[in-house]
Order: sequence, then structure tokens, then C-alpha cells
Amino acid sequence: MWFQVQASLTYSFAEPAEVLLMVEAARSHDQGVHAEGLTIAPATDIARLDDSVSGERRCVFTAAGQTAITYRADVEVLARECNLSGVSATAIRDLPGEALTYLRGSRYCPSDRFEAFVEREFAELLGGDKVQAILDWISAHVDYRAGVSDPATTALDTFVDRAGVCRDFTHLAISLCRAADIPARAVSAYAWKLKPPDLHAVAEVYLGGRWRLIDPSGRAPVDGLVRVATGRDAADIAFMSIFGRAELVGQSFAIRRIKVRAR
Amino acid sequence: MWFQVQASLTYSFAEPAEVLLMVEAARSHDQGVHAEGLTIAPATDIARLDDSVSGERRCVFTAAGQTAITYRADVEVLARECNLSGVSATAIRDLPGEALTYLRGSRYCPSDRFEAFVEREFAELLGGDKVQAILDWISAHVDYRAGVSDPATTALDTFVDRAGVCRDFTHLAISLCRAADIPARAVSAYAWKLKPPDLHAVAEVYLGGRWRLIDPSGRAPVDGLVRVATGRDAADIAFMSIFGRAELVGQSFAIRRIKVRAR
Amino acid sequence: MWFQVQASLTYSFAEPAEVLLMVEAARSHDQGVHAEGLTIAPATDIARLDDSVSGERRCVFTAAGQTAITYRADVEVLARECNLSGVSATAIRDLPGEALTYLRGSRYCPSDRFEAFVEREFAELLGGDKVQAILDWISAHVDYRAGVSDPATTALDTFVDRAGVCRDFTHLAISLCRAADIPARAVSAYAWKLKPPDLHAVAEVYLGGRWRLIDPSGRAPVDGLVRVATGRDAADIAFMSIFGRAELVGQSFAIRRIKVRAR
Amino acid sequence: MWFQVQASLTYSFAEPAEVLLMVEAARSHDQGVHAEGLTIAPATDIARLDDSVSGERRCVFTAAGQTAITYRADVEVLARECNLSGVSATAIRDLPGEALTYLRGSRYCPSDRFEAFVEREFAELLGGDKVQAILDWISAHVDYRAGVSDPATTALDTFVDRAGVCRDFTHLAISLCRAADIPARAVSAYAWKLKPPDLHAVAEVYLGGRWRLIDPSGRAPVDGLVRVATGRDAADIAFMSIFGRAELVGQSFAIRRIKVRAR
Repeated sequence: MWFQVQASLTYSFAEPAEVLLMVEAARSHDQGVHAEGLTIAPATDIARLDDSVSGERRCVFTAAGQTAITYRADVEVLARECNLSGVSATAIRDLPGEALTYLRGSRYCPSDRFEAFVEREFAELLGGDKVQAILDWISAHVDYRAGVSDPATTALDTFVDRAGVCRDFTHLAISLCRAADIPARAVSAYAWKLKPPDLHAVAEVYLGGRWRLIDPSGRAPVDGLVRVATGRDAADIAFMSIFGRAELVGQSFAIRRIKVRAR
Repeated sequence: MWFQVQASLTYSFAEPAEVLLMVEAARSHDQGVHAEGLTIAPATDIARLDDSVSGERRCVFTAAGQTAITYRADVEVLARECNLSGVSATAIRDLPGEALTYLRGSRYCPSDRFEAFVEREFAELLGGDKVQAILDWISAHVDYRAGVSDPATTALDTFVDRAGVCRDFTHLAISLCRAADIPARAVSAYAWKLKPPDLHAVAEVYLGGRWRLIDPSGRAPVDGLVRVATGRDAADIAFMSIFGRAELVGQSFAIRRIKVRAR
Repeated sequence: MWFQVQASLTYSFAEPAEVLLMVEAARSHDQGVHAEGLTIAPATDIARLDDSVSGERRCVFTAAGQTAITYRADVEVLARECNLSGVSATAIRDLPGEALTYLRGSRYCPSDRFEAFVEREFAELLGGDKVQAILDWISAHVDYRAGVSDPATTALDTFVDRAGVCRDFTHLAISLCRAADIPARAVSAYAWKLKPPDLHAVAEVYLGGRWRLIDPSGRAPVDGLVRVATGRDAADIAFMSIFGRAELVGQSFAIRRIKVRAR
Repeated sequence: MWFQVQASLTYSFAEPAEVLLMVEAARSHDQGVHAEGLTIAPATDIARLDDSVSGERRCVFTAAGQTAITYRADVEVLARECNLSGVSATAIRDLPGEALTYLRGSRYCPSDRFEAFVEREFAELLGGDKVQAILDWISAHVDYRAGVSDPATTALDTFVDRAGVCRDFTHLAISLCRAADIPARAVSAYAWKLKPPDLHAVAEVYLGGRWRLIDPSGRAPVDGLVRVATGRDAADIAFMSIFGRAELVGQSFAIRRIKVRAR
């Protein structure tokens, strides 16, 4: 499927500050990026710090005064295999080196704390069936509700609070998968059909020899996800990191399905 | 300087389990590894998952029954510039892409929590002088004392407890540096003159265009460090991760200075 | 000094709920309550659960629909000795029984976590001088700033965040005093000259044979405090506990100095 | 039933320190204390700080050098009604004033954090049936296992860790009951048939107009409990608080059933 994505961000900087931006569609194995445009007004020098392994696109610039950032792209998303049933776990020895880091605890995913729970609840399952059971458990025990969590909320908080938003569902799913020795990481994505439109937080698990996208909060179809950034948890995939201070003036994210373009 | 390092680890596995081992000296810009030998008894297949960026050496094998691991190497450590005074901070745009991850909070280094403290205490300093002031503050306010911390202890705990061991000093230093927008990461190392001998936890900060080793607990000279693993915090640099269960039978780490060998 | 205090609270209850109210001026050794009136509209049965030891006044009623609570009183506050300098600590054996509970950790005051810090920073001081040094340390290291903390914030958070409001200053002061084996508790009070007017959170320490009021955030004079509730921390002194759900319609607290009334 | 209880505690004090001791059987409505003896060697002055409301017995003395404390008593425990089925909750207005404090969060029982979980899992139940469902949930989801928890472990930790000892089970039960607006508190007790013998941590809930003992870890019969101290959680019921330093030399607790004595 083809999608057109757009991000519009306006911030006001009282003093010049460096900004790290991660809103561009990733150039990854499962999607192709076309007809892309990033504009920053007023114009400024942009340095690129793209990641070749994950395909994540990052750029850095110095912002001053009121700054408007606009990104637009047409993206082709390849069909994704979403069925986890029967997919085998990958032995540690067969993991790609960069997947090791996604077995470990992180800022919002203290997976070491969930080992006893995962052992107690899901010990008899393996691989994709275990991940599916974890997702089902989360669905049955956690409510989607705004206002319960904040930027400091961890998976441990969500496990206790039993409520949260997409970021919290994702952190909990990642934590439980890692506690089961299954590599899991966070992905930000433009999400077709997500209501209200926003940059969505989903997860990716390494099973059966490759990374597979899952949506722990179940708010949007996986085939309509246009991936942006990849990381251990929300700390890594923030769409904008400001090294200084700024005021939000306005921001919006949009995605719509488009007809296949002739190339 | 040249060092001979040795690790001897014996564990007993009631059932076969995969083991990820990170005790080998890194092949990095600041050290050369020679005359190296890793033996696992009984013999088993070893898969390598080395990291080309950091030079970190990792291997994975399946252990069963009582398993003895021995590693030995002669390592040449190049002279290191330890003086932080006057070294400038590196702009975000000039960081190598892989350094970005070390600006963010992690499992044991919730650096976002320390932004107000760092702003309050160290705002007027920059770059190497700021890092040095952070190290001095830690020295003056935290006691080196075993038994206060455990594997779940975070930098936030150490900041309150005002005591800990090398791992805790390292986590606190990393957290405070990241809160000041200076990339900081954890490094495990054989440490010459460390008493008692052990695998040491130190830190590395990105300043003046390159990574620089520091020893936040001040227990060993930086020029006598033989680096092993590199990561966000202790979660990443464990010398052994067992994906299953095992009993410790015995373990020791040793390092001694040796004469320069003719090559 | 004499003060007139007033509280006006309006809440809307979709379903009937029990409400525990603690806005009435305490009848304690250091203040006398006169010309008092509490009205709840629409009228409802009020059960009293006053505490004879602390003088705390509590009442319980069932609220339904939109409920307006008004409390007004004239209160005579006796002169308070605020100088802590040279006041001796009280031996544990000489404490009144009900003071023991205020030596221990509580929900927002995990005083056990601060023992090492207090020993490190204030070991050489005793009694009132130690409490004064603790208050001075807090003043010098914590900023008064709204929006940093929320109802879940503990003294440990404030110690790290280095900012908070009166409730947070009070929790930190209580925690540090208890860590020094000095009984300390939380008090809610109408506070003369507090800007903006609100129910204030202050503390009380047991020194030299009696409880002494202190204002850790230094926002209002101690002689102008009309005490209401007393407890271990904010969990105990909430002016209103709703056992069910309600919407806030409006609330205000006021205090003004009045001329001595002829009795 | 009649029981003989005994505590033997030996500590070594390098410097004189005040000690608060709570090992004596409480003089409460549900038990009578007879033939009691407390000896401290070497002899020292003992100050009493007993609590008339709970019947809790406390004494304070100054210890120096090696100090041996021995307590022995014959205690008659009245039959206790343990069946919670159908027992109604008590309205807030009908609670005794001292029960209010046991509705609130405390150091190890952050009950406010469990409100959503309790609402989700137990909303349709009331009073004793709700408490029984909470106890059943804990039994089904938490393992009794030593070594998982330490003195800093809270109910929130236990909820995640899914394992703990009697203290942890008690904290979790108390937290969940309070989150359901049922007053709950911690009680230390000599416990007949407890293996290995120790001072046991159990809970008490206020239902149907009175306090009712429950044993959340289910390790000992409620009719064989000789109650000692009562408080919000473990912070309040420690059998010995040392205001200074001491080394443990040895300690033991014993209880045996005895024949009814002629009085």
C-alpha cells in the first residue's frame, strides 16, 4: 500500500538551540520512501546523522525564533506478515549483533523486574505464541485511557496502574517480551486509521529470523504503519529533541492512503 | 603499556543453556590485542557476535554440566589523555550517529531526572570542566562502600544513598553527564592496580571530538584499563548473560603489567 | 493574634458518596476556636470523628448532587516560639507515646532512605540546630516552583528534582528530621499572608519537650498559621477525602487578621 | 487457647544507644496476658510508652555492651471469628476515629497506586467477600519465597515480583484492602505452628464493626496468633528499633500451646 504522510511542527525558540529531528520515514527493508520533502523555515543548515542499520533518519539543525518544520513523503509499505502463531523464537546465537541490546532493560522498560511474572504466566509457551499471549494478557488487563501516564511513566507503573496510552502499552509489551528473552524494541510510526491522528508508538519483536511489527495498543492496522524511528523505548524515538528551550506553537501529523503512483 | 589479562569462570548448568560472554579485550582504537586464547571446557561450538563499531567482542555458546571458561590475552594499551580541563563539548550535529543513544536515559541511568540538579549545580561550566566538576561533586558527596547497592540499584538510588561501588559511581556520573547533554556510556575493563581484582566499571564521555575514559570511583588508573564491553549502563556490559539457570562455582579476574614483547 | 478563616468548597456528585472533611480549625493547645460555623448545602447528617489527642476536627457526611460546603471561624492563635537555636532533642524515652509514629517512614516521607545523607551532612549538630541546618539546606538546594510535582511525588523525588511546592518542602523536611531520629509530622493550616491564599502544608517537629511548628517552604509566618489537620504526611491531612467520585466546581480558602474580640 | 511465648534477643552495643522494644504481648480485647516477665541484662532503667488504644506494649531503655533481652508470657487467646463471607463493610461515618489512618497509604503500602487494579478486579464484591477475593488473588498470583525481598520492598514491588515472605504478603493485602476503602493494618504476632518459628507479620481489617485478623501468607492459624504490635505497616511494628548502632549476636522467638492454667 501507498501512503502520503505529513508532519507540521512549529516551535518558538527564545534563544538558538540545536534540534534533533526524527520525523522522516525510515528507509528500511519493508518500506520505500518517494517524493520526499523536508523544509525548515527560516532556512538553516541541516546536518544528517542517519542510521544505516535501522534505516532511521535523523537530522540536526540550529533553530532560532519561530521555526516551522514541514515534512511530506509518499511511502510504499510492503505487506507485513502479522500472524505470530507458531513462529519460532530465534536462538541467541542466531541473532544479529544489533539485536542483543534489545534483550536488555531500558529507561522505561525495566524488563528484569518482570522475569518472575513472565515465568509464572507464560512459561509453557514459546516464540510467537508467547508474544501473542503477552499481547492478549495486556489487552485483557490494561485499559486504554489518556491522562493516567506522563513522560516519566515506566512499564512497571503501567503494570500497576492497569491503564495508559499507546506508549505505555508498547513499553509493557516490550518489557514482557524481553523478560522472556525475546528481543523487543520501540518504533514510532505514522499510523493509518489512528484516531486522533498522531505519531504512534508500536513495538517490534525479533522472531523466526526477523523483526516483526506489532501494535500492543491495537489502535491501528500494522500494514498501515509508516515507520520512522527505532529504539529501546520512548527515550530513543522522540520525534524532536531540543537541546535548549522552546515553546510549542502547534504540531500535527497526518497520513492518508494514496493510489499507487506510476514511477 | 602492556598488560596480561586473565578471566577464569566456572559455572554449573543443571540443564543446557545459551550463554553470552563478554570478557574478551575489545579491539578498539586505543588498544591492541595479542596472543589471545579463549577456552571453554567441555568444548562447545562458539558463535561470534562481535560489534564492529565499538570493537566489543561477544560470543555465544551452549553450556551444559560444569563448564569452565578461561580467557587470556596480552594487550597493548595506548597512552590516554586524561586531562579534561578546557576540553570543549561537541555540538550535537558533530556527534557520530552512534553517540546519540548515549545522550538518553537508560535502565540504571535515568538522566532525565537529573536535569534540574545539573542545571542548578553546574550550569556555568562547559565541556570537560563540567565533567570534571561532576566527578569532583561525586567524590565529595558519595562514599565508596560495598553492601549498600544491589543489581537493581539505579543512579537515582545512589544519589540518595550517597554510597555505592564502582558500578554505582559510574551510573551516577553517566546520568549527570547525559543530563548536561554530554554523551556518556559504561565500559567494563580489566583494571590494573584495582584492589581487590575484579572486572571494573568505568565510564566514557564524548568530548572534544572523541570518547574519553574516566573512572568515576577513582579506584584505578585510566592508563591501566583494558576495555572489554561498552554500553548504556550495567545492563549492557554484563560479562556473562545466562539464558537459563546456572550455579556459580568460582570466578576470578586478573591483570598484570608485562614487558613490551617483541613482535 | 486573632484570625478569621473561611473555606468554600463546591463539588458535584453524580452518585451519593461519603465525604471525610478536615477543614475545621483544630482545638489545640496553641489556638482557641470561636464563633465557628460549618454549613453543608443541601443539608445532610454530619457524623463527627474528632481526634482528642491532636485536636484535629473531622466530620463525615453523605453528599449527593451539587454540594456546597462553607466553614468560617474566628481563631485565637497563641504566640509561638520559633527559634530552634539551642533547643535540645528529646530522648526517645521522654517522648509521648503518640510521637513514636512520627519517627517512622510514611507514604511520601521514606525517611529510612535519607539516613546516610543526614549522617553525612548534619552529624555534628544536635536538636534544634540540626533541624535549622536541615531547613537551611533545603532552602539553599530546592527551588519553590509549581508544576514539577504531582500528588504521587515523594520526598525522594523532591530530593532529586530540587524543586517543588509547600507540600514537597514539607515532605523533604519531615523525611530528613525523622532520618535524624527527630519526630516530625505534617500539618495543614490556613496561612496568613500566604500568596496565593490556599490551605498550606507545614511541618511540626518534637524538640525540647514539645511540638514546634516550622514552615519548610518559608512562605508564611508561623505565628499566622491556623492549624487544621495533623498527620504523617499529605496522605493524612487531605482536607477532603471522597469515597466515590465527584467533580470540583470551585473552592477557595481565606484568612484575615481581625481585632481581638471582647469575650 | 493458651500459649506460652518467648523472645530471646542478644545484641552488642559498642556505644550506648536507646532501644525501643516491642516484643511484649498486647493487652487487647482478644487476648489476656499472664505470668509475664521481661528481663534485660545487664539491668537498666526501663521507660514504658504503652498505647492504650491498641493495647500495644512498648518500652524504651538504654543499652550498652552486650545486652540480653528475654521476654516470656502465658497468653490466653480468645476464639476469633475468621470467616469473612458475607461480613458487611463499615461506612466511613461508623468507623472509630483511629481507624481513619488505616485507610491511607503508608511507607510500604502505597494503596493509592492500586485503586484502578482493585476497581478492575474486585468492583462487584463488597465487605468480607471483597477481602476474601483479595486474599485468594494474592494466593493464586504470589509465591512464598525467601530472598526476593528486603527491608525496602514495598507492596508495589511485590505486586510486580510475584513473590515474597509474610511481610510482603501482608503489605500487598493491606494495600489492596485500603484501595477498596477498607481499613487495614499490620500486626506482629507470635504464631503457633509457624515454621520456622519467628515473629510473624499478619494483617487486620475493619469489617462489620470490628477489627478482624487475617494471615495473608496463610502460614499459621489465626487462632494461634499472639498479637504484639499494631501499625500501618512494617515500619511501625519492628520488634526492636535501635537509635544508634548494634551488632546482632543472636535472636529467637518461640511459642507453644499450654494447658489452661488455674488462676
